[in-house]
Amino acid sequence: MNGAEALIQTLSDCGVEVCFANPGTSEMQLVAAIDGQPKMHAILGLFEGVVTGAADGYGRMAEKPAATLLHLGPGLANGLANLHNAKRAHTSIVNIVGDHATDHLQYDAPLTSDVIGVANPMSDWVRVSDTPSDLAAAGAEAVEASLAYPGQIATLIAPADHAWTDGAEPSARKEPADAPRVDDKHINEAAALLKKESPAALFLGGRALREDALEQAGRIAAATGARLICETFPARLQRGAGRVAVERLPYFGEMAADYLKDFAKIVFVGAEPPVSFFAYPGKPSWIPPEGADLIKLASPREDASDCLTRLAQALDAPAEPAAHQEPFAPPLAGDNLEPASIGAALAELMPENAIVSDEAATAGLALFPMTQGARAHDWLTLTGGSIGQGLPLAAGAAVACPDRKVIALQADGSAMYTVQALWTMARENLDVTSVIINNGSYAILNIELQRVGVAEPGPKALSLLDLTNPVIDWVAISEGMGVPAVKTESAGAFKDALAEALSIKGPRLIEAVIA
Amino acid sequence: MNGAEALIQTLSDCGVEVCFANPGTSEMQLVAAIDGQPKMHAILGLFEGVVTGAADGYGRMAEKPAATLLHLGPGLANGLANLHNAKRAHTSIVNIVGDHATDHLQYDAPLTSDVIGVANPMSDWVRVSDTPSDLAAAGAEAVEASLAYPGQIATLIAPADHAWTDGAEPSARKEPADAPRVDDKHINEAAALLKKESPAALFLGGRALREDALEQAGRIAAATGARLICETFPARLQRGAGRVAVERLPYFGEMAADYLKDFAKIVFVGAEPPVSFFAYPGKPSWIPPEGADLIKLASPREDASDCLTRLAQALDAPAEPAAHQEPFAPPLAGDNLEPASIGAALAELMPENAIVSDEAATAGLALFPMTQGARAHDWLTLTGGSIGQGLPLAAGAAVACPDRKVIALQADGSAMYTVQALWTMARENLDVTSVIINNGSYAILNIELQRVGVAEPGPKALSLLDLTNPVIDWVAISEGMGVPAVKTESAGAFKDALAEALSIKGPRLIEAVIA
Repeated sequence: MNGAEALIQTLSDCGVEVCFANPGTSEMQLVAAIDGQPKMHAILGLFEGVVTGAADGYGRMAEKPAATLLHLGPGLANGLANLHNAKRAHTSIVNIVGDHATDHLQYDAPLTSDVIGVANPMSDWVRVSDTPSDLAAAGAEAVEASLAYPGQIATLIAPADHAWTDGAEPSARKEPADAPRVDDKHINEAAALLKKESPAALFLGGRALREDALEQAGRIAAATGARLICETFPARLQRGAGRVAVERLPYFGEMAADYLKDFAKIVFVGAEPPVSFFAYPGKPSWIPPEGADLIKLASPREDASDCLTRLAQALDAPAEPAAHQEPFAPPLAGDNLEPASIGAALAELMPENAIVSDEAATAGLALFPMTQGARAHDWLTLTGGSIGQGLPLAAGAAVACPDRKVIALQADGSAMYTVQALWTMARENLDVTSVIINNGSYAILNIELQRVGVAEPGPKALSLLDLTNPVIDWVAISEGMGVPAVKTESAGAFKDALAEALSIKGPRLIEAVIA
Repeated sequence: MNGAEALIQTLSDCGVEVCFANPGTSEMQLVAAIDGQPKMHAILGLFEGVVTGAADGYGRMAEKPAATLLHLGPGLANGLANLHNAKRAHTSIVNIVGDHATDHLQYDAPLTSDVIGVANPMSDWVRVSDTPSDLAAAGAEAVEASLAYPGQIATLIAPADHAWTDGAEPSARKEPADAPRVDDKHINEAAALLKKESPAALFLGGRALREDALEQAGRIAAATGARLICETFPARLQRGAGRVAVERLPYFGEMAADYLKDFAKIVFVGAEPPVSFFAYPGKPSWIPPEGADLIKLASPREDASDCLTRLAQALDAPAEPAAHQEPFAPPLAGDNLEPASIGAALAELMPENAIVSDEAATAGLALFPMTQGARAHDWLTLTGGSIGQGLPLAAGAAVACPDRKVIALQADGSAMYTVQALWTMARENLDVTSVIINNGSYAILNIELQRVGVAEPGPKALSLLDLTNPVIDWVAISEGMGVPAVKTESAGAFKDALAEALSIKGPRLIEAVIA
């Protein structure tokens, strides 16, 4: 077999079942190899930001890597922004990036670029295969690297001649190392501190936000009275009725600092101490309260569930959490379509086990608390701040979990970045309801303009934050890409449209005009 | 004034009139500074690939840089693919990339990334400002770097605190060095060689493809009988009736090698010797004929017009070129809509001084020869092979040349990459007619799949090259972004639609279904 066939066989043997792809000439042998591999599902995205964002959504839900197939340096470059988000989410992804044949590089053909240089900033692991027969071995290493707890971005660069040359063999799966465990000594120190009488918080992120880990956190809360606080932008938070609830740290730095200011001690599990998302003139970047004990117990790369289980044991905590979230849906007040009415409709209608991809930006901040008591669901957020994640992430989550409803809560400005994701949803008949919250602007930036000290922005500045000239017709764009769509301008119409979209299986788009 | 104001004042003093932008929080001070600068036009793109592609189109036509305003590492990453094309086109661009405040970087906030690492692969020049008062000086240097003949990609990284801190002053314009001139010795050697009796070609690229340089090339052809051949993917070729015509080197390597095989000598001006675009198993990358004299007279970074003028003098060439292109429009044959009918309509209807942005891929190869005798025009091609250039390039060209009609000849697959460019065309009422040549596939890849040796691709491989499930409705997408559109399925309907679009001023889209 040729190098491409050996690589794809290896990826399949290592458990990679899905390849999100936008290939070019230099990847044609890899396309042919995927074609011959019955266990590999190939999904086309019409832009690489869709490909990498979908791989992120898949990885967050499947807890194993999808492969991506990308075309040389520029194709990889188009996927970098969503790889940035995936890297911040600690998602497992294996990128396969074709490059020119090794002998061809010397000629500096038009598509030649520094592919390693493009890969490095948004990858945890980068490797070029050395020979045709090394390509499969490098693939096995890439999967192993991608599975380093809780996940990594592994980028393998495959020269075209390594793919097309015969005489290669598949490589054996390499077992990733177990997740690093926190020392007993640190567990016991944290337990001792938590037993002291003073306001305490468990600050949770990463894998500490899965249902089983939250159960343990709830036991710790029952034993110590510690409050459970979640990082502002979790990769995947399991929440809703019947789950252990967490409070979410506010977005703006000064609100976050105020939120934490009365804690005498904060124990971090699966998260680093929080910092301001952006810097602002005269405002501090560091958020935790001065003088508080900050215990960095488990980093995002240490086993969060194990850590919380052992901390609960060390505290001799009760078997049950202090509380589980009660079912709760806030009432719909009036017919004005605004974030609150969207939140009320979601809270009432979201089905059990829904997956929410939240890139609703300013509007999303209101939707989160309102769905606190909705049926149990997973909430995925914009981990790296690089907009254009939401629709691709929803598509990838739907591929990973074909039996669960995915709901994309999507700001209009961000949705335009990777709007091509709608086409993939239609092509694969993915069970995604996309809600485009259309406020006709990059609303967050109107706030930020003031916050950085621009007191009286003029018309040219404001025009750079405005999306109303021309108005974007989301129904037309969605249907142009094959996803049935409806525009809603009242709370009642939105709720009806949401109920209808959730009742069917397959992609739908609802434009919610809140401007 | 603060650093941002000093920088924007400096850019304006250095002749930068347009800023294509997609800013975020870390660029809000720069947005405010642009707001206060009456000589700076700010144009919003809804994705950074639109921003950088438009800057490329502007720079190719204006022969001076536009600025871009990009949001941190991920925003720059989204713009890299079109910067790759611009770098290959030797276009002048000044990228201004915001970064976190310098003190904030240590906290590794979610949007932190290695911005220099992201910038390097697709930039010719990269610099971070050292202090708030250095920001303007760095801006002047960036403009100078961008103007190094014939143009460069200059990327300036602006930490947010450098932008917001007061006490800065504008920096003086720095004059770029003159274009390097070819030595007399080399001119005379080339002239001596060209005087010998044997088949000769002048192989032209870059600035050698402007009207004045082509006049000189035509004089050389008249003196020596040398054929004039143009690189396959010129950044900007001035052609059409009344101009000195050039032959275009074929795309596929073996066809290109065959095209050149009978030349005993080839003189390169503004171009390097051609190589195959991609490598293929068993096929050579190097295209020029073995045994021929290859004279690399002027690289793309040496003054092409001066070189050709002096070479014509050294040859004592006649004052007039051997020939100027006669006006010619091939007849429309039948009503079937195919590339030939699109070419015939273009050849007849393109107005004087039109600008063509050609990303028509497989179909474009037919459109080029058919428009050889159309009214004089500029033809801009996909210099770096990174698809998604065409619509943004057209938008930028229209900003640079508001009194000229721009025609974007656009393959469907490539158009989807940066489809958001349509919105900017509508917003700025740009005089662009976009022709989407819809063949429902990445057609070039069906050819390439065979060429790399995949004899019998299966359904999964073919599905990765297919765009018909679902069919993309270009009229819906275009109108959803504010650009009036029409779908055509016959040669007559296409010609009528083209005539109508060319008769008005403002953006239009014509979908030409050739599948």
